[in-house]
Amino acid sequence: MPTPSLSISRRTRSTAFTSRLTDHGVSAYTVYNHMLLPTVFESVEADYWHLCQKVQVWDVSAERQVEIKGPDAARLVQLMTPRNIAKAKVGRCFYLPLCDEQGKLLNDPVGLKLAKDHWWLSLADSDILLWAKGLATGFGLDVALQEPDISPLAIQGPLAEDLTAKVLGEDVRNIRFFRFKHITYQGHNMVVARSGWSKQGGFEVYISDANTGRALWDELFEKGKTMDVKAGCPNLIERIESGLLSFGNDMDLEDTPFDCGLDRYVSLDADIDSLSIKALRQIAKQPAKQLIGLVLDEKLQHINDTLQINDKTVGEVRSHAWSPKYQRHLALAMCNRALIKGHSEGKVETNLGLKSASFDDVPFDFIKLGLKANPA
Amino acid sequence: MPTPSLSISRRTRSTAFTSRLTDHGVSAYTVYNHMLLPTVFESVEADYWHLCQKVQVWDVSAERQVEIKGPDAARLVQLMTPRNIAKAKVGRCFYLPLCDEQGKLLNDPVGLKLAKDHWWLSLADSDILLWAKGLATGFGLDVALQEPDISPLAIQGPLAEDLTAKVLGEDVRNIRFFRFKHITYQGHNMVVARSGWSKQGGFEVYISDANTGRALWDELFEKGKTMDVKAGCPNLIERIESGLLSFGNDMDLEDTPFDCGLDRYVSLDADIDSLSIKALRQIAKQPAKQLIGLVLDEKLQHINDTLQINDKTVGEVRSHAWSPKYQRHLALAMCNRALIKGHSEGKVETNLGLKSASFDDVPFDFIKLGLKANPA
Repeated sequence: MPTPSLSISRRTRSTAFTSRLTDHGVSAYTVYNHMLLPTVFESVEADYWHLCQKVQVWDVSAERQVEIKGPDAARLVQLMTPRNIAKAKVGRCFYLPLCDEQGKLLNDPVGLKLAKDHWWLSLADSDILLWAKGLATGFGLDVALQEPDISPLAIQGPLAEDLTAKVLGEDVRNIRFFRFKHITYQGHNMVVARSGWSKQGGFEVYISDANTGRALWDELFEKGKTMDVKAGCPNLIERIESGLLSFGNDMDLEDTPFDCGLDRYVSLDADIDSLSIKALRQIAKQPAKQLIGLVLDEKLQHINDTLQINDKTVGEVRSHAWSPKYQRHLALAMCNRALIKGHSEGKVETNLGLKSASFDDVPFDFIKLGLKANPA
Repeated sequence: MPTPSLSISRRTRSTAFTSRLTDHGVSAYTVYNHMLLPTVFESVEADYWHLCQKVQVWDVSAERQVEIKGPDAARLVQLMTPRNIAKAKVGRCFYLPLCDEQGKLLNDPVGLKLAKDHWWLSLADSDILLWAKGLATGFGLDVALQEPDISPLAIQGPLAEDLTAKVLGEDVRNIRFFRFKHITYQGHNMVVARSGWSKQGGFEVYISDANTGRALWDELFEKGKTMDVKAGCPNLIERIESGLLSFGNDMDLEDTPFDCGLDRYVSLDADIDSLSIKALRQIAKQPAKQLIGLVLDEKLQHINDTLQINDKTVGEVRSHAWSPKYQRHLALAMCNRALIKGHSEGKVETNLGLKSASFDDVPFDFIKLGLKANPA
């Protein structure tokens, strides 16, 4: 279909950086947590190559925070996630699948432990504030819950560390992966984490003051000129190549962590008071589904969502993109484990007709596939 | 800014009718409850005139349902809304502000009472399923909660009753406003309510089977040819003229029902077990804000969100549109009651400079304003 426009209104909240994005030529958005999230600047492929080679500044304000503060903060976080957080240390980030009593996924935020009784959940796209408020109300927990106006700005790409150090100081080089520090910029405290939704390296800066955020944006572009810094955004190709899952796309409210290969974030053997742990212990014995990678030879415009083996539907294609680096079309598909067992390929209907798709792991194992990365 | 594209993915769920919309020339979407909601076909103004004169079929699948079923269904609905539902009858629709313990709005669905222990909440844009699940889990309620795959299709406009009767039978003429009946179409049960997000009259058909829904769509267009039926959608101009509020635009999680003129949906004197009623009884004594109408003489492209009196900010413009019928620019603004008291106009910065805006009620009182509706 022709690309439709997005109607922007107060409900699709603009961010502290929206006017900057317009200046930098944003060409497409999605709506994420009721907020604008850029998806394309020049083109998905041009943005991809630039991200893999240089440095980009991303407005990821749409990764809204749920702030949980108070004596019962840790208890509420633990109720929501099946990952044991008993030994979680302040200053660290934690990938936290959130699940309901049936073990179904509700979101997969990165949690930041700011203090013993103070957490942020940096969200994927669902209103976890309402889930948290409902639980806190029902269980009578002593917590304050809100969505603070914090706008994460990501600096991503191989030159991200150099650029961030130039602007925020050399100390950022000492921040280890999935840890954060408090840094003062123009008199404002900012949380700076080594994290981000790409595998190209970089930081996420959690900005609580819009004007300071825009000053930081401008300084990143000023000091990054020699590095060819550009405005960017989470990139479909890069994130599929890297095996980064997107909640709502690759996994949803009907899937469990085991379906999505998130086993290591479920603390099955820990004695934790988590809503989902009982159900997940049962499901772990025989998970029904599995998210797998698909590799196709041709560059495709379109793939139908049905994955078949011998004319029988065995799975659903959820995301896909042409990988310019590996010269293969890559897809992620949620499959029935029983129906794909012993098979190594299936078929999908595409704009070029019925095509074979080889099965692979998530993330893709390009070495095992015998694929070498091509230069741009 | 130039109109950006919307990136469509599995996460911005397509509906049973998306391919039909493409055929009918949809030109813009928004994302609503993680689903595509069309916003423009020909143009907002052309769509508006057609809606006011003929009949349109709207894909409002994005008005997702929260289904609440079980012995504690009514208890959960009452916990969520400050409107007394003790005497609610089966077969009726109820506009239900949903509020948290502070009396703040979380959504404003239309509730359909299908049976004593069975409700649907036809949602505005927030994940009330998560709020309901959180409460049910915390309070240990005996309810089953889900988002069933039900796609509301609206038939709206002055010819809507004739068209609906032609396709679904003469009996629909007997459905009174905000009531519904079960009607069988091609062997499938459908809930048909006299409701919809316009003041032009019509029905909403709740469709539980996609193929049957598409058959209904096709028959509506086949039998509606002589009535000049078109595909349409909730229309910005018509809904502002009619004083229909949009959650996320005109009201949000920081507002109370009293701020938004929804006083009559808060049962202050009833003895109800509602989470918000205690807070709302306090707030009712002195509500802080008021949503008002603004009337400007000029057709504007842009209005800044700040409403001022004597250079002091007194409110925030939240929605606006040029009314072709009344030849005025209309806006809705959330104001500080104390700061607008005794004033009848303010000023807003627009693309044509600083302009005066007269204060009016919501909905607008065009008779009091001395404005007559112009023909197209």
